[in-house]
Amino acid sequence: MGLFGTAGVRGPVRSRLTPDLAVRVGHAVAAELASPELVVAVGRDGRTSGAALLRAVTAGLLAGGASVCELGVVTTPLLAYSARDGVGVMVTASHNPPGDNGLKLFIAGREASGSAEAAVAAAVAEAPAPVRWDRWGSSSAATVRRSYLRAIDRYTTPVGADARGLSVCLDAGTGTGAMTSAPALRAAGAEVVVLNGQVDGHFPARASKPTAATLQTLAAMLRAGSFDLGIAHDGDADRVVFLAPDGEVIHEDTVLAVVASALLETTEIPDPVVVTTPNASRRIDTAVDAAGGRTVRVALGDLQGGLATHGDAVVFAAEPWKHLHPGLGGWIDGTASAVLVTRLIAERGLDALLAPIDELPYRKLSIDCPDARKRPVMAALAAELPELFPAATISTEHGLRVEFADDGWALVRPSGTEPKLRIYAESATVEAVVEPLTETLERLI
Amino acid sequence: MGLFGTAGVRGPVRSRLTPDLAVRVGHAVAAELASPELVVAVGRDGRTSGAALLRAVTAGLLAGGASVCELGVVTTPLLAYSARDGVGVMVTASHNPPGDNGLKLFIAGREASGSAEAAVAAAVAEAPAPVRWDRWGSSSAATVRRSYLRAIDRYTTPVGADARGLSVCLDAGTGTGAMTSAPALRAAGAEVVVLNGQVDGHFPARASKPTAATLQTLAAMLRAGSFDLGIAHDGDADRVVFLAPDGEVIHEDTVLAVVASALLETTEIPDPVVVTTPNASRRIDTAVDAAGGRTVRVALGDLQGGLATHGDAVVFAAEPWKHLHPGLGGWIDGTASAVLVTRLIAERGLDALLAPIDELPYRKLSIDCPDARKRPVMAALAAELPELFPAATISTEHGLRVEFADDGWALVRPSGTEPKLRIYAESATVEAVVEPLTETLERLI
Amino acid sequence: MGLFGTAGVRGPVRSRLTPDLAVRVGHAVAAELASPELVVAVGRDGRTSGAALLRAVTAGLLAGGASVCELGVVTTPLLAYSARDGVGVMVTASHNPPGDNGLKLFIAGREASGSAEAAVAAAVAEAPAPVRWDRWGSSSAATVRRSYLRAIDRYTTPVGADARGLSVCLDAGTGTGAMTSAPALRAAGAEVVVLNGQVDGHFPARASKPTAATLQTLAAMLRAGSFDLGIAHDGDADRVVFLAPDGEVIHEDTVLAVVASALLETTEIPDPVVVTTPNASRRIDTAVDAAGGRTVRVALGDLQGGLATHGDAVVFAAEPWKHLHPGLGGWIDGTASAVLVTRLIAERGLDALLAPIDELPYRKLSIDCPDARKRPVMAALAAELPELFPAATISTEHGLRVEFADDGWALVRPSGTEPKLRIYAESATVEAVVEPLTETLERLI
Amino acid sequence: MGLFGTAGVRGPVRSRLTPDLAVRVGHAVAAELASPELVVAVGRDGRTSGAALLRAVTAGLLAGGASVCELGVVTTPLLAYSARDGVGVMVTASHNPPGDNGLKLFIAGREASGSAEAAVAAAVAEAPAPVRWDRWGSSSAATVRRSYLRAIDRYTTPVGADARGLSVCLDAGTGTGAMTSAPALRAAGAEVVVLNGQVDGHFPARASKPTAATLQTLAAMLRAGSFDLGIAHDGDADRVVFLAPDGEVIHEDTVLAVVASALLETTEIPDPVVVTTPNASRRIDTAVDAAGGRTVRVALGDLQGGLATHGDAVVFAAEPWKHLHPGLGGWIDGTASAVLVTRLIAERGLDALLAPIDELPYRKLSIDCPDARKRPVMAALAAELPELFPAATISTEHGLRVEFADDGWALVRPSGTEPKLRIYAESATVEAVVEPLTETLERLI
Repeated sequence: MGLFGTAGVRGPVRSRLTPDLAVRVGHAVAAELASPELVVAVGRDGRTSGAALLRAVTAGLLAGGASVCELGVVTTPLLAYSARDGVGVMVTASHNPPGDNGLKLFIAGREASGSAEAAVAAAVAEAPAPVRWDRWGSSSAATVRRSYLRAIDRYTTPVGADARGLSVCLDAGTGTGAMTSAPALRAAGAEVVVLNGQVDGHFPARASKPTAATLQTLAAMLRAGSFDLGIAHDGDADRVVFLAPDGEVIHEDTVLAVVASALLETTEIPDPVVVTTPNASRRIDTAVDAAGGRTVRVALGDLQGGLATHGDAVVFAAEPWKHLHPGLGGWIDGTASAVLVTRLIAERGLDALLAPIDELPYRKLSIDCPDARKRPVMAALAAELPELFPAATISTEHGLRVEFADDGWALVRPSGTEPKLRIYAESATVEAVVEPLTETLERLI
Repeated sequence: MGLFGTAGVRGPVRSRLTPDLAVRVGHAVAAELASPELVVAVGRDGRTSGAALLRAVTAGLLAGGASVCELGVVTTPLLAYSARDGVGVMVTASHNPPGDNGLKLFIAGREASGSAEAAVAAAVAEAPAPVRWDRWGSSSAATVRRSYLRAIDRYTTPVGADARGLSVCLDAGTGTGAMTSAPALRAAGAEVVVLNGQVDGHFPARASKPTAATLQTLAAMLRAGSFDLGIAHDGDADRVVFLAPDGEVIHEDTVLAVVASALLETTEIPDPVVVTTPNASRRIDTAVDAAGGRTVRVALGDLQGGLATHGDAVVFAAEPWKHLHPGLGGWIDGTASAVLVTRLIAERGLDALLAPIDELPYRKLSIDCPDARKRPVMAALAAELPELFPAATISTEHGLRVEFADDGWALVRPSGTEPKLRIYAESATVEAVVEPLTETLERLI
Repeated sequence: MGLFGTAGVRGPVRSRLTPDLAVRVGHAVAAELASPELVVAVGRDGRTSGAALLRAVTAGLLAGGASVCELGVVTTPLLAYSARDGVGVMVTASHNPPGDNGLKLFIAGREASGSAEAAVAAAVAEAPAPVRWDRWGSSSAATVRRSYLRAIDRYTTPVGADARGLSVCLDAGTGTGAMTSAPALRAAGAEVVVLNGQVDGHFPARASKPTAATLQTLAAMLRAGSFDLGIAHDGDADRVVFLAPDGEVIHEDTVLAVVASALLETTEIPDPVVVTTPNASRRIDTAVDAAGGRTVRVALGDLQGGLATHGDAVVFAAEPWKHLHPGLGGWIDGTASAVLVTRLIAERGLDALLAPIDELPYRKLSIDCPDARKRPVMAALAAELPELFPAATISTEHGLRVEFADDGWALVRPSGTEPKLRIYAESATVEAVVEPLTETLERLI
Repeated sequence: MGLFGTAGVRGPVRSRLTPDLAVRVGHAVAAELASPELVVAVGRDGRTSGAALLRAVTAGLLAGGASVCELGVVTTPLLAYSARDGVGVMVTASHNPPGDNGLKLFIAGREASGSAEAAVAAAVAEAPAPVRWDRWGSSSAATVRRSYLRAIDRYTTPVGADARGLSVCLDAGTGTGAMTSAPALRAAGAEVVVLNGQVDGHFPARASKPTAATLQTLAAMLRAGSFDLGIAHDGDADRVVFLAPDGEVIHEDTVLAVVASALLETTEIPDPVVVTTPNASRRIDTAVDAAGGRTVRVALGDLQGGLATHGDAVVFAAEPWKHLHPGLGGWIDGTASAVLVTRLIAERGLDALLAPIDELPYRKLSIDCPDARKRPVMAALAAELPELFPAATISTEHGLRVEFADDGWALVRPSGTEPKLRIYAESATVEAVVEPLTETLERLI
């Protein structure tokens, strides 16, 4: 595996993301991405290893000749916002376990592209000597939250309505999300109760990754209280999950469909595009069509590619739980979506908001498959699919995608990080789709 | 009313605790309390006016010639701990509404005495000119949380048992309490879920003062979840309230009795004393007696007086919700009690802990009485009491206190801050005590 | 006298510029100048009272509803640069004694105009209550030196030549000037030795105001060493004074003429204007004429007025020691001029640089005159002047100015701050000008 | 060469003291020296690589499980003072060129001993993995200058007299020395003019190491001005050099003799000891004898060894330019000596102070000698010495030391860092001593 995965450099702090590596990556970023004119913004989430790794990456940046502006403990969107005209490095492992940490690079507010990451990885491998002593960079500090909150406010105000009277329970999970989402939601008018809003890198309250399983306290809270909405972030608040007042997680694809519709309704962009990924469900296409937009699918993890291709036409680019708002900037921003959904509920009520979204039954599962077998198995499956689903349309652009007449679909793709194949399926008769796929794959593997 | 009330200088920030007043108080503290050798520790809770008032009081201190160490946003116990060998000023209105703020003075870790406050008040009235320009003080900064948490750990370890397996819900109410109580409880082994742990001076989640009425979200949370204990602080975490897993507030006097007993059981002080106030119930005396201690009552708000009189013999000094631990230091510390009670429940279970405490029925009420009438009415009541309760013993040391044969008692005292008389009564037949008192007072007024 | 003099609010810290006043001015600035969108930049020079007064003015700003960005110890030009798109408050008494301090307001990088100051003064007099508790401002921090130094570099590079090989002695006088002028001069290529570069508000080394009398150590240093130039700033580095290698102060008007010429030579502005004041000598006009520019005189202390009137045509606006560079921004900037003059010497040598400047003999003196007598005496003098100097041209725009055929001139004006009349005269026969003026005035008074 | 030389880890920042190494050393210090109870104090001088390396060593400390208190830019004595009860790491290359940097370890205020350094070096070689993620340390910050200055004041007050009226020129050489020596000298009453007091890691004004050659600007300044004393520090102010008003460097051994005498005169220690090194001249012994003390010599660089052996009896331990004051703490402190010498001159005048010191003519020179030849040449010289100087006493404890009847002496020792032999000689007829030694050595080599 290369240095950079789908979410930057990431791994356990004892064996992979050590201070040594952070120094080398900082140095490489300085060498490859920073010009003398630029100041690199650096920040971190609240992980126990963050204080050390932030210093290490800063040391590398300075020794590589970059100048650095230290933002301290922030959310990833806040860091990206601060790097909207430059380069940024965020020390976070996002939704990973507390013993992991990572480095995420931003250029002009966007996650670094594969080619930029490759250049940095090459420089890390080279391990160049520090620059001459009189060219080491200097560091400064700044606080940016106020300006970011103003940007969030400007961006979200055209959508939905003032949330006065709405009561939201925000589960920050001892991540950094409360520092932006709590004031942003309050600025939108909502009353906010925060669960574990104190930053604590031990993640003592729940795992960083917000899922139905890890959000049981929030769900209990919602059932016990009289809240209109539950919202949860991961440790660095790029991700966002919504829960209904009954404690049930609102399906991530439904959220995408709702936000996409609302943004399409208020946009002034002609022929607007929504970018999403192959694992995102058909209901998004339906909603986007209804709102007068066009859906474009890009490979999982490549929202930036979609933005690059469709430029100013894109009003929203998202994969499940991760929403990028081009009208705000080129980064994934959980706080922006938290405010948007809250304002939409304030305007329409949750039921009315979800009603138009057509939720076909959905399944998602994984099948063990050694890495070496992935390619031949996928090829064999491609050969068998037409026979398996004679009535369906098959596309091979991003994995193998099968489209059914009833608006249902299925997708099979090899995992990028684990020895598994993933099956996603959505259909009025989802079991009738999943079962033959599973059997075929197990036989082929 | 003088400048200082029972809890320092306090009031609305628009009309009373303005930056002007904070400058003058800072200056007066420098003039009266600070020697050139001393550095005055300053800190604040999270109120919206705190950033300004902290700067104002610091400006006054410096202009008065004191040197200042700035601790930023802290709890009151943390500030007091930092001033354990010197002088401290805490910018907090504790449990007051968000539009109030205040200044609390500490000398050698103890709240300033009346005479020290009088000296400061006199200097404020005088409004002296700043000291000569070359004697203005200098400022430094420090972080103290780590050393404080270590002190809490050392102090609490001998009591109760490791809390591994215990689950606590801590309601910080967007005050500063989570910054010390959450890690301290975790250090004691407990699992902690925090409600509103992010600091927010708007107190958007609940009022700063933790009462049954303001803790409804916590109570709902406790009923919904599977917690062993609920704990709540006010905005600056000197106060502490405990809730049972069913969401009911544990009576503040019962908490006092429990903590007092436990400290007496582990102390090595010969002939140990527990200091409390007249409004604290008989159940404390009973528990203290049983644990081999002696109860001493001082006027409400004068725990320091009790400490001064009984010196090293005091193992615990408390009024309802406010616990001072001489073994830790001379300040009221909600975090220390939070850990102690948690460790006691870990050792014995909540039911076993509360079982020995004898809770007689208790009533507390107020009767309107103009300030000018307070003194004659109290005198008249004193004259009538022997006739009203012929079998009781009457003492006049702190208000009028009546002791009954069944271990019951009643206390009548004029309020120090409102045009009211207060009646407290605890008895197996409490209505039979309160009714004649009320009738008599209403007649006399 | 009003609250604001010619250089903001200024005075002794014990009797005038107390923390109380600073709180009130901060509050008034928030009320009158700050909009909710703006962040007010605040900074201070190194005076012993600066730490307190900076906090006090910040407290007032926050209580008045403004948000604040704290820059710490900076030069006045650095503060003005940071407020180039907003509002700034600098805590400095510039060249005053160490027991004084002051507050200087900047709007859009320019010193606040009289009308803005009047609005603030009116708000100070009103002493409004703080804004509602939930509208008090918030504070952040930032470091700005790097970006400022880059701006200086960009601005100065077109003038003169790289100063490699030049050796400069910079006397910072324990003011803040070394923090920008030392690196800026080094960036220009010069070798720099700094006298009293450590910031110390006691001004133990010399008075803040750089004059021939206070710069004796620097002069001795220049005579002893092998320096090409001496440069001195006042405590906040808006002022600048230059000394020749022999330790002699280069006349402030000559410096103006040199800088004006160089800026005119490199400007691309058509019909460029140089703004100066009536007390600045004729040699400026001569140099400006020769370089193809036009000189405009405004009242002393009113450079901003000249900028307002002549807008984009102004390439330089200066009174003795105080240089405003419109190409950099609307503030007086001693560091910019320090670099410009150094680069000019690098290009041409000091002798060649000064040679074209025609230094007629110059005199400046004061005559005691009670404030009440100023107006009638000036009127009487105006009546007598035509008789006194029959061949001269007389103008009454800014005081009484007499122009002679030999390019000489004289100016009489009442002091704005002291009970004196000032006489300035420059002429080949300067005594023949000053003597009759003095006699006449003494008679009239 | 091992990791640690005579002054910690030191070398060029591009090839040796890189951020990678700093991370590893920080980690090793945490592993070997820090206990969970301890907070490691870290600081740096002003070198351009200091910001990066401080962060790198802090990252290593945290990843190794230590907690860290960051002091920022300080002098080495200030860092050592802050670590007087714990462990400290100073990022400095002291008097080395600007392209070098280094790490100096302190334990209980003393430079780490050889065995502690060996333990750290072993841990660096091992390169252990970071500790478990939940045991990484936390960081805090503090400012310590005020308390240090008070300690200096208390320590120096018993010696000499108030320096009111004395004028001192302090050459900080853009190191950090002005931050403590300037205020300490002023607190002692002296007027202070500072040369290059602004911190600048480029060392643009002079090399960090203060020698007659690098102090020419200071010498010129002294000759030009009317100063009573010149004082110079290296970049981190452990070293100190004194210059007479005529610009001449006062011999470093004379300074030792003067300070030793004065400390002996005021001590209350019975049978007091002065520790010094073999290269320090006879005049020290003479002065110590006269003042009632006893001189003990230890190997160069091993003052700590002398302290360990003679414990509480030591009143002063010094090698040329580096003075350790046991009454203040176990570190080398240039500021303390700066104040002491100034107070002595205030009391007695420079001439009277130096008069008793018997300065025999002194020579110090080096002879090239390959490392491999050092040992045989020294052995051969030892064999020939009795013949060369028949009347002298010869000792072999630290190199070869020859003592003459006229109080003169000579020392030959191999350099620890260069391929050279060093000859030191002091005698009324110094050439008659040096010449035969040189000839013999050149022949033997």
